[in-house]
Amino acid sequence: MSSPTAAALIIGTELLTGKIADQNLVALATSMRTLGVRLMRAHTVLDDVVTIADELRALSRAHTWVFTSGGVGPTHDDVTIDAVAKAFDVPVEISPELDGLLRKAFGDRLTEHHLLMARIPRGATLERSEAVPWPVVKMNNVWVLPGVPEIFALKMNIIESTIPKTAPFVSLAAYVRLDEGHLKPMLDAVVAQFPSVEVGSYPRWTDPDARTKITFDGHDRGVLNEARAAFQALLPEDALVRVEG
Amino acid sequence: MSSPTAAALIIGTELLTGKIADQNLVALATSMRTLGVRLMRAHTVLDDVVTIADELRALSRAHTWVFTSGGVGPTHDDVTIDAVAKAFDVPVEISPELDGLLRKAFGDRLTEHHLLMARIPRGATLERSEAVPWPVVKMNNVWVLPGVPEIFALKMNIIESTIPKTAPFVSLAAYVRLDEGHLKPMLDAVVAQFPSVEVGSYPRWTDPDARTKITFDGHDRGVLNEARAAFQALLPEDALVRVEG
Repeated sequence: MSSPTAAALIIGTELLTGKIADQNLVALATSMRTLGVRLMRAHTVLDDVVTIADELRALSRAHTWVFTSGGVGPTHDDVTIDAVAKAFDVPVEISPELDGLLRKAFGDRLTEHHLLMARIPRGATLERSEAVPWPVVKMNNVWVLPGVPEIFALKMNIIESTIPKTAPFVSLAAYVRLDEGHLKPMLDAVVAQFPSVEVGSYPRWTDPDARTKITFDGHDRGVLNEARAAFQALLPEDALVRVEG
Repeated sequence: MSSPTAAALIIGTELLTGKIADQNLVALATSMRTLGVRLMRAHTVLDDVVTIADELRALSRAHTWVFTSGGVGPTHDDVTIDAVAKAFDVPVEISPELDGLLRKAFGDRLTEHHLLMARIPRGATLERSEAVPWPVVKMNNVWVLPGVPEIFALKMNIIESTIPKTAPFVSLAAYVRLDEGHLKPMLDAVVAQFPSVEVGSYPRWTDPDARTKITFDGHDRGVLNEARAAFQALLPEDALVRVEG
């Protein structure tokens, strides 16, 4: 069974000029693991309509789902909605529903500029969940999410309750005292013995005790437990610090 | 004068499975601003040789410089060196110099597996600076950097002292009480008046006072100061919280 796949398009000049670090990829990736969707890649690009539209066209053809982050405000550097429309060759129009929500949210403080956030590509749908008051714009297989991390994380609730859940991914870990040079033959043995398990090895530079984290990822918790047990059996005495998951 | 350009290739399944957030893009982006190099995009991909090689071929043709992050240890999931060699169609060989450094660094603890980290693509050079003891592998216009953030940041010293510096980018900021809907006409006026200035607008969701950060980026500090002053002149009284840069 092959998993559905996804790609992230992270939009924001601020991320490529060192002003801020992205926080949304971890949130998206975590939701994808829960849903059993394999996140294949994340592209971070500048606030440029043509670049974003080109990326969207290619990513939406290659993957089951695409998730954009950022560029959905009302100012000159917010070009994501225009780029989604361009990618699918449709015009931009006003969503009466978003227009109504914006009027209600801003009340007396509303200006014509706030209403720019009611613009959606023609044919887009508004996706919602009970827990989240504001809908997400979805155009074909592209979900348009805001860049603000607090709102992005909140919207994951809509994603998780809307996208069909297949086999979720499970991740186990073992923290060990040995470095990767010493661990390599043991890891190679486990990788060969358990082809369905994705084994990861990560040096922990600032931890003087647990110098390496080994991860075991896959769909079947039973097999993952076997793989971790096989790894532990190869370790010298006292090399294991702790396990997780 | 068009600036040299760069792309980042961030390698690591752990970044696409929610295990960890990248910290290296901010460090790289900051160094690129200092050097006057325009960082155009960053692609995050899985630990897969073919994917990485394909990306490297495309990115190295399109940009002045490419920087990879991650995948340079000795275990089965470290495939960056093989992918760089594949991208440029050269074999992998042992660097006698890295071999010597590894033997010296690991001493009695050395295994044959540690020496896997002496592998480089044929034709690669080792770049160094006085301040950093361990060199960086460079193949044509591709710089191969480790994923561990502490070491990645350290290696930026080699990058900054080796790549020719052109006109550095300068960034000024203004923090204001207004939201983007109210700021839009003022920003549009400044964008129209100062075409050489990149103006960014960023909502600050968790700050009840300075609700929006406006940035002014470019090569000429004098012009940036003029653009920020023009923006400030358009603000209502008491709307400015503080300036930066």
